[in-house]
Amino acid sequence: MTYCVGLLLDSGVVMLSDTRTNAGFDNIACFRKMFVFETPGERAMALLTAGNLAVTQTVVAKLRHEIAREDPARSIMLAPSMLQVAEIVGRTLNGVYVDTDSRMQRGEVSASATMLLGGQRLGGQLRLFLIYPEGNFIEATEDTPYLQIGEHKYGKPILDRVVRPSTSLEAGRKAVLISMDSTLRSNLSVGMPLDLVTIRRDEHRVATRERIEPGDPAFAAMSDAWSRALREGFANLP
Amino acid sequence: MTYCVGLLLDSGVVMLSDTRTNAGFDNIACFRKMFVFETPGERAMALLTAGNLAVTQTVVAKLRHEIAREDPARSIMLAPSMLQVAEIVGRTLNGVYVDTDSRMQRGEVSASATMLLGGQRLGGQLRLFLIYPEGNFIEATEDTPYLQIGEHKYGKPILDRVVRPSTSLEAGRKAVLISMDSTLRSNLSVGMPLDLVTIRRDEHRVATRERIEPGDPAFAAMSDAWSRALREGFANLP
Repeated sequence: MTYCVGLLLDSGVVMLSDTRTNAGFDNIACFRKMFVFETPGERAMALLTAGNLAVTQTVVAKLRHEIAREDPARSIMLAPSMLQVAEIVGRTLNGVYVDTDSRMQRGEVSASATMLLGGQRLGGQLRLFLIYPEGNFIEATEDTPYLQIGEHKYGKPILDRVVRPSTSLEAGRKAVLISMDSTLRSNLSVGMPLDLVTIRRDEHRVATRERIEPGDPAFAAMSDAWSRALREGFANLP
Repeated sequence: MTYCVGLLLDSGVVMLSDTRTNAGFDNIACFRKMFVFETPGERAMALLTAGNLAVTQTVVAKLRHEIAREDPARSIMLAPSMLQVAEIVGRTLNGVYVDTDSRMQRGEVSASATMLLGGQRLGGQLRLFLIYPEGNFIEATEDTPYLQIGEHKYGKPILDRVVRPSTSLEAGRKAVLISMDSTLRSNLSVGMPLDLVTIRRDEHRVATRERIEPGDPAFAAMSDAWSRALREGFANLP
């Protein structure tokens, strides 16, 4: 399982992923699910992946292959808009998904995968997409400024309550970490370390990029403070 | 969908259910999912149901039929222990499930259903069970004093943080309502009104029983206060 979340705020995008993968309950490993693509000053994008690891790794490898080939119609580093980047990712994802899924029917294993894509290129808008295995996608808007993939339920209530487009990048960072904290507590197949990236609007470069390791003191302090706030808020209810 | 939750506390059990049922997205209705069985002073029990409505209604009808027949081996009002009550409910549920499911394969509709059973009889222990369609069951313990059926994920983080066996009945009542509130906000197929029952330990009678209607001012005030507490707690995070 996986939990990835992205926020589209007035001030920028915030994207967070865990790193745990599992093949059954007894085979757990750590794999990066966040991939950053950046030409500082021209474009900055982050791609977060959930689902079948063979599929998502192949998609990322194919995207990189096309970047190296420098074909403007296929490279996400040359595509003239975020919409076209989403289309390239969607087409690549769907191709790998269909090809893999047809060979996996026998084992009744799903080749399904989803991705979050956030970022901006020079002259374009900052955008955040959720891309489905069929290659189609939806986009975050003012009404719903966040998108999630993977184990989304435990971490959704806090996002619904505190995330607005006007939320600052720093508050957005806290919100996704609290949302992840609720998920980590409830689902063993979501696990540390975490990867977090922020991209400020109209900067076209990654603003912050961090890996939060197990036992990270700041994350532990935030998690404890949040538990305390919940318990105190609960105790003070009418 | 459905959300039902039960707490096994030192002071008693608290059980809460919603009332929404749906056959597809376009056919939503309101059905009671909480059934109280009581001989005041001798035994008090509540049964909460989730899953296929035809199955759960048939199970409750069969349980009532056996109560009327007064067969000690089959009536949950005559069974000498809560364990035996759970066994009768489990056997009945499994019988209806297997019978229905075999006829529903063609339509690819699930006949699955689960139930929460909480209560106590004179001379026995207060117990809380989660009964599966296969008729087997698990029981709440000191380590995990709550059980959930249906849409359990949205409402789990708050239970993990505030419910302990030592939690008072009144605080337990607040905890299940807050847990339900998070679920109501996130899943349209869980809906008001709510049914809530409490049974104090060693009283062998229902302590409180209430239906909370849409727009209930106390529930709305609690929900607003909780949202405010979350936002304030979030704003004050380090």
